[in-house]
Amino acid sequence: MPPSSRPEVFPVHTPAASQIFTTVLSHGPLTRSEMAGRTGLSAAAVTKAVRPLIEAGYLVEDVDEEARRALGRPANPVRVDGGRALFLGVKVTGDELIGVLTDLCCRIRVARHLPLTDRDPKPVLAQIAELVRELLTEADGFGVRVRGLGLAVSGDVDRAAGAVRYSPFLEWRDVPLAELAAMTTGLPVTVDNDVRALTVAEQWFGAGVGLSDFAVVTVGAGIGCGLVVHGQVVAGAHGVAGEIGHVAIDPAGPLCHCGNRGCVEAIAGEEAIVAAVGEAAGVQVADAAEALAFAHRGDAGARAVYARAGEAIGRGIATVANLLGPELVIISGEGLAAYDLFAEQIRDAFAAAAFGSAAQCAVRTRPLPFEEWARGAAATAIQSFITTDQN
Amino acid sequence: MPPSSRPEVFPVHTPAASQIFTTVLSHGPLTRSEMAGRTGLSAAAVTKAVRPLIEAGYLVEDVDEEARRALGRPANPVRVDGGRALFLGVKVTGDELIGVLTDLCCRIRVARHLPLTDRDPKPVLAQIAELVRELLTEADGFGVRVRGLGLAVSGDVDRAAGAVRYSPFLEWRDVPLAELAAMTTGLPVTVDNDVRALTVAEQWFGAGVGLSDFAVVTVGAGIGCGLVVHGQVVAGAHGVAGEIGHVAIDPAGPLCHCGNRGCVEAIAGEEAIVAAVGEAAGVQVADAAEALAFAHRGDAGARAVYARAGEAIGRGIATVANLLGPELVIISGEGLAAYDLFAEQIRDAFAAAAFGSAAQCAVRTRPLPFEEWARGAAATAIQSFITTDQN
Ligand SMILES: [Zn+2]
Ligand SMILES: [Zn+2]
Repeated sequence: MPPSSRPEVFPVHTPAASQIFTTVLSHGPLTRSEMAGRTGLSAAAVTKAVRPLIEAGYLVEDVDEEARRALGRPANPVRVDGGRALFLGVKVTGDELIGVLTDLCCRIRVARHLPLTDRDPKPVLAQIAELVRELLTEADGFGVRVRGLGLAVSGDVDRAAGAVRYSPFLEWRDVPLAELAAMTTGLPVTVDNDVRALTVAEQWFGAGVGLSDFAVVTVGAGIGCGLVVHGQVVAGAHGVAGEIGHVAIDPAGPLCHCGNRGCVEAIAGEEAIVAAVGEAAGVQVADAAEALAFAHRGDAGARAVYARAGEAIGRGIATVANLLGPELVIISGEGLAAYDLFAEQIRDAFAAAAFGSAAQCAVRTRPLPFEEWARGAAATAIQSFITTDQN
Repeated sequence: MPPSSRPEVFPVHTPAASQIFTTVLSHGPLTRSEMAGRTGLSAAAVTKAVRPLIEAGYLVEDVDEEARRALGRPANPVRVDGGRALFLGVKVTGDELIGVLTDLCCRIRVARHLPLTDRDPKPVLAQIAELVRELLTEADGFGVRVRGLGLAVSGDVDRAAGAVRYSPFLEWRDVPLAELAAMTTGLPVTVDNDVRALTVAEQWFGAGVGLSDFAVVTVGAGIGCGLVVHGQVVAGAHGVAGEIGHVAIDPAGPLCHCGNRGCVEAIAGEEAIVAAVGEAAGVQVADAAEALAFAHRGDAGARAVYARAGEAIGRGIATVANLLGPELVIISGEGLAAYDLFAEQIRDAFAAAAFGSAAQCAVRTRPLPFEEWARGAAATAIQSFITTDQN
């Protein structure tokens, strides 16, 4: 099919087609028999799924003459044509927007930051629209259209409904963000919890490639968790899942903004740490950087606060491991800046609280900048593009 | 194919074939288009998967002349032929073996109990062999072969390896039960955690039919949990999953046999309740029935013990809901005998600790006798029969 008559939509939305596409995206280039091996689909099903994707230009086949000669039959590797479409991803934090323009392979082409001037939905939406306009202008240079926008927001987000049910850091409740952003930007919009979006990026391109069961635990302003079970990100029947931050580990612990006592986040979240370090030191501590400086200067009270945070995180991770038995837990987030202060406590608390062979789960850290979270948002937009008819 | 030349094995082991078979098992009779609708498979894939299963006699097609006349094309409902094969399931408790003989539809045909005389692996294996012999004698009357044996054991069980890694109630460690039982019985053996086996039965025939995400929480000697995520029972990468009993909710709580403090099981397990009621009453309490009698007579200390147990269970369920966001949590187990004493506390603690819309998860009780657990064990044997080549 000549490029000019190529469809503007993803040609097939069967489970097999999206499975093939994401497998090639993560592991490609792959021959058709390698795709069959990785997906468990039959050779016929692979051939059937690949054909329209090649015809529409989303997958490309590289002719491997050497393999043909060696095997006596074609064994052409197939890869995603990254240049075939563009996507936008925006991570919304309490302080700034981080936006990326990616290609269809979810490679970042342009990244931009925009400080938030106000946390109310309306001004945030206006700033999202502004950032999107800037990125669309950049996209003009690439000669292909932007096909979708992914927005990643912390808190209780219902992706299916496109709504932010409750975001503590933004103080939002029941904001129909997908609909509002679609109106202001004119793009198809996918809204997801920010940690789940990051988890999609880790599953497709990061430490989770090839794993069917893993968790991403993020430590920072909040304590979040993205879960992959049976090869799919867990979304929860009602939109809530992975709320490791609100796993209550101590009924005598500090009060959490959710109303309970002793949640992991109420002990190990940034705000909790800043408050506890200030209390221990008997002075006003302004922010996480200052709290960290206190501890790094050797203040025993401050160091004890981080030790306690590490223990809470380790116990939270053990709870995930005891319930789901993942292969790997990836710890990330801006809180890793304090990792030297609580790494040992995370490890020890995890080892003590993991039940039986759940302790075999590997736990490792991986610094992922906010651009990577925004990339995760773009990945959710790519997911929507390849799985739904709405585009 | 005439019955005499029918294959002794399940003819195809593709994911599509087992998906079709279990869908018809749970929801049948179904027409092919209904199967396609429920599984998301294409009409062609359904037809391809159904044909060998009908030829081999595992599925049967009922001719619906009325539908043919109405539609102008055949729309024959297909169902599982329950009489085509038999299976055995045995649930091993600390006190007895509960064995069932089921048909291919996992309907119980015969159930037998055998008190355990000794908990060591060797005598337990000898008693399993004795129970299996009795059930095989019963099976003779049906004229079809028994194709597999499922064994359900509490604790850390690695189904893939066929091994019991650690079972607290039996005091077993690293027992290669599948291999040993296969030698003594001559049958293909599947070994699984007892709650996971019960969860398979609930998914196929019980309150979980049609749900893609639910949990079964069992309250009794231990506090267990079977999880279904994305339509599949969670097994854990290393065999451990669903260990809600060892979710630690109170660092100041009672010591658990796993070495931690304040596990749900250390507060709400049978042994913990019996000990705590005895302590509260200042007398020796022999067993769960006696503890229950104390509370039912109105002893305030005993009632407080059950209230605390209910709170622990409710918090454990909230942890599951916060991490996985299931549609439904089913509470079962012999501990339901005390349900009037802690139902309110379970509900209240769950509602308080569930984060955001995770609280929308339905929680309901369902009494399931041990025969149902043994039926779950038989269901795991059917799973193995239809998914692996070993038979
Ligand atoms: Zn909380
Ligand atoms: Zn424990």
